[in-house]
Amino acid sequence: MSNKLISREEDYSKWYNELVVKADLAENSGVRGCMVIKPYGYAIWEKMQAELDRMFKETGHENAYFPLFIPKSYFSKEASHVDGFAKECAVVTHYRLKNDDNGKVIVDEDAKLEEELIVRPTSETIIWDTYRKWIESYRDLPILVNQWANVVRWEMRTRLFLRTAEFLWQEGHTAHATEQEAIEESQQMQRVYAEFAENFMAMPVVKGFKSESERFAGALETYTIEALMQDGKALQAGTSHFLGQNFAKAFDVKFTTKEGKREHVWATSWGVSTRLMGALVMTHSDDKGLVLPPKLAPIQVVIVPIHKTDEQLDAISEKVGEITTELKKKGISFKFDHRTTYKPGWKFAEYELKGVPLRIAIGPRDLENGTLEIARRDTFEKKIISFEDTISHIEDTLEEMQQNLFNKALDFRDNHITEVETFEEFKEVLKGKGGFVSAHWDGTIETENRIKDLTKATIRCIPNDAKVEEGKCVFSGAISNRRVLFAKAY
Amino acid sequence: MSNKLISREEDYSKWYNELVVKADLAENSGVRGCMVIKPYGYAIWEKMQAELDRMFKETGHENAYFPLFIPKSYFSKEASHVDGFAKECAVVTHYRLKNDDNGKVIVDEDAKLEEELIVRPTSETIIWDTYRKWIESYRDLPILVNQWANVVRWEMRTRLFLRTAEFLWQEGHTAHATEQEAIEESQQMQRVYAEFAENFMAMPVVKGFKSESERFAGALETYTIEALMQDGKALQAGTSHFLGQNFAKAFDVKFTTKEGKREHVWATSWGVSTRLMGALVMTHSDDKGLVLPPKLAPIQVVIVPIHKTDEQLDAISEKVGEITTELKKKGISFKFDHRTTYKPGWKFAEYELKGVPLRIAIGPRDLENGTLEIARRDTFEKKIISFEDTISHIEDTLEEMQQNLFNKALDFRDNHITEVETFEEFKEVLKGKGGFVSAHWDGTIETENRIKDLTKATIRCIPNDAKVEEGKCVFSGAISNRRVLFAKAY
Repeated sequence: MSNKLISREEDYSKWYNELVVKADLAENSGVRGCMVIKPYGYAIWEKMQAELDRMFKETGHENAYFPLFIPKSYFSKEASHVDGFAKECAVVTHYRLKNDDNGKVIVDEDAKLEEELIVRPTSETIIWDTYRKWIESYRDLPILVNQWANVVRWEMRTRLFLRTAEFLWQEGHTAHATEQEAIEESQQMQRVYAEFAENFMAMPVVKGFKSESERFAGALETYTIEALMQDGKALQAGTSHFLGQNFAKAFDVKFTTKEGKREHVWATSWGVSTRLMGALVMTHSDDKGLVLPPKLAPIQVVIVPIHKTDEQLDAISEKVGEITTELKKKGISFKFDHRTTYKPGWKFAEYELKGVPLRIAIGPRDLENGTLEIARRDTFEKKIISFEDTISHIEDTLEEMQQNLFNKALDFRDNHITEVETFEEFKEVLKGKGGFVSAHWDGTIETENRIKDLTKATIRCIPNDAKVEEGKCVFSGAISNRRVLFAKAY
Repeated sequence: MSNKLISREEDYSKWYNELVVKADLAENSGVRGCMVIKPYGYAIWEKMQAELDRMFKETGHENAYFPLFIPKSYFSKEASHVDGFAKECAVVTHYRLKNDDNGKVIVDEDAKLEEELIVRPTSETIIWDTYRKWIESYRDLPILVNQWANVVRWEMRTRLFLRTAEFLWQEGHTAHATEQEAIEESQQMQRVYAEFAENFMAMPVVKGFKSESERFAGALETYTIEALMQDGKALQAGTSHFLGQNFAKAFDVKFTTKEGKREHVWATSWGVSTRLMGALVMTHSDDKGLVLPPKLAPIQVVIVPIHKTDEQLDAISEKVGEITTELKKKGISFKFDHRTTYKPGWKFAEYELKGVPLRIAIGPRDLENGTLEIARRDTFEKKIISFEDTISHIEDTLEEMQQNLFNKALDFRDNHITEVETFEEFKEVLKGKGGFVSAHWDGTIETENRIKDLTKATIRCIPNDAKVEEGKCVFSGAISNRRVLFAKAY
């Protein structure tokens, strides 16, 4: 298989699909819509998990684990929730296989479940059924719990990381004594997600909240972070829901207040998933392959020896040993690729494809000169650096790259937020450069749906910081007091 | 709910069930056989995961993720494998729910899968279907991959952690060019598991291999680590399988050797699960609650202030702040429980129940004297320690406790390995003190089954270090050349 990618210009969608597979991030499995996350892709996901998990714990959350299966009856208890997920549920109906008379393996019809089990598409129902047993008084609140888990949503059209039948995610589920506290929690987690996206993924996001029709099934408010991909399409990167007392009412979860009254508990839930892997790829990568922000790169520095003889390799290895000892001390991850089964040129292309931030090349002449060559993945810039400056140069450059990737993505994003006043302009922007269209909207679902039908653009969010400004709805002309962001989206 | 437990003496099985629930480790869920792992229990599991994951990576393994679902046809490809798991499989047959005419939520019969999907009970089949695409030549080998995942085995009689329909585990799946390398890998992972059990769980284990009838379905050899619980029953704590070329043949996975020949690949798989949580509880705990080895305790030191006035608490808190600053530097986890809603006596009992290794009590008189009281969970020994000696005392005692717990369990285990020569003795030991019975066995499945029927004892393993020794089978009298370990087991 050639490692060369189709260009983004030529076919963005195909470029993405090829890149995910060729850079060894993931691939389709033999199971419809389910992916295999390959070791290199999983290593990036592990780095994401580690940072998010740290941030969750710093904000007072603990991890726990709830069942994979949800009895159908639980699932039905919150009406809008079941409506939202019913059409994409994997259902377990039997618990045994057997051999038929011809020795073929078949489902044993005698082992039919009395009540079908749903493979969780999200865990609000099973968790609130559990919280009922955990919550008695105000002393038991708040409950601040997160779980790392797999979930299943039976999607008809799937794409690696972006939309798969099974995906990995975390789902936080918190319980509070007051409405205000629950709202603050859901807003806090939106901030945590935005910080993670910007500081680790180097991916700028707009913080906002969803219109009613785009809300999570069962939520009173859905806070979102929205990112922009290089093709001008938006991607919802994380959501945090204020659930009110909906699930507490459906599962009869009450607590005794300090004053001795019995009240329903207030809830939030929030999640990000392996979809972030797709967002990471599409935010920074180029026609040569992945571009990874140093903070999430499994290998930050790759070292490729350039040599003809074994003696030369020995001499290079000795020097490299000194460098990697220092890198280890600094907590910088590295790989010394001294395989002789591949040539340097092949290795260069391979690590470009895999988005390793820095590549060091070192040969016999370098040893004589006391220098080596360091190439940056983001700008392809190469520099000759003396041995003594190597470590500080690496440290500085990794930091600079992290910042540079963010700035580049921010410039792109900011250049792709276009304010429009008419529906003609609206359509032109979508047909042209794409990105977010900032427009007045009359607040009705009817208008939202009509615009969606006509343009495929949806309301991505009402930005948290949208300023109050009198205007007219871009579609209906009715009065509006703030702009919202529309876009075509993943 | 009272926090007092029934004693082990009175009802060991009930003691275990009560302890797991009351110490906030886990509880049964509304889904038959599926447990909820509560935050305190999950925190212990996270510590186990972190150490195991580090050990896997140090031995060259990478993590990846494979689908939850396995098509029935894959599952059927390795004959003994499907026989081993067919009777306990959760089967997904549909992918949609709908409302019936009365608005009730039902399974949509129009959304029936063409081929049923099995919720993975283990992942050999889906992984070897994937490896076929990854392996072309000897250059692609070995593949050293692990996944952390949930699996489902439909057990009829379940117990928290020990036997649940869904459980969490890791499963390593490796692919090798030679038989020898695969055997070495499976033996290496047995050693890794034994090291983890002994050095972190403080749980001594016997390393051995299984008799044919106790082997994993599809394995040529199953290496095991076997531990002994306080009630004299054995517990299989981890297994590592040499799979030969069985899965490579079933899934047609071949590679080109250096010499250009096409050969089937050699395989191993190995796993430990949340079952280890049950083993941990049953190895060390007592009638007052959990006893945790310091290396796996989520909280290593709890500090309880003894005070009457707010001023006293302020003065205590200031001193505690100095201590916890030092603990943080040393990487020792702690909790300062200054809640005024609970009394010190209640807190003492609570942290005993939860197995916190060290408890510090500190009051106004201690401040005057420059001392505090430190109590050990394992021996209940209390000591008055000066402020200046506090940190070093904590460090030393935690280390000593880790060693002490291991030694105690080792003594118990070694006192419960009984060599017998006759079947009468065999039965007497099982009826009396229990534990491992070391006996000669003629090597036949018939004898093994007869002994099992008559005594409920199974062959736990043939110890790796079993010495060659002529003898007669304890049951049939036939010639045998080594002893094996029998026991009743979880």
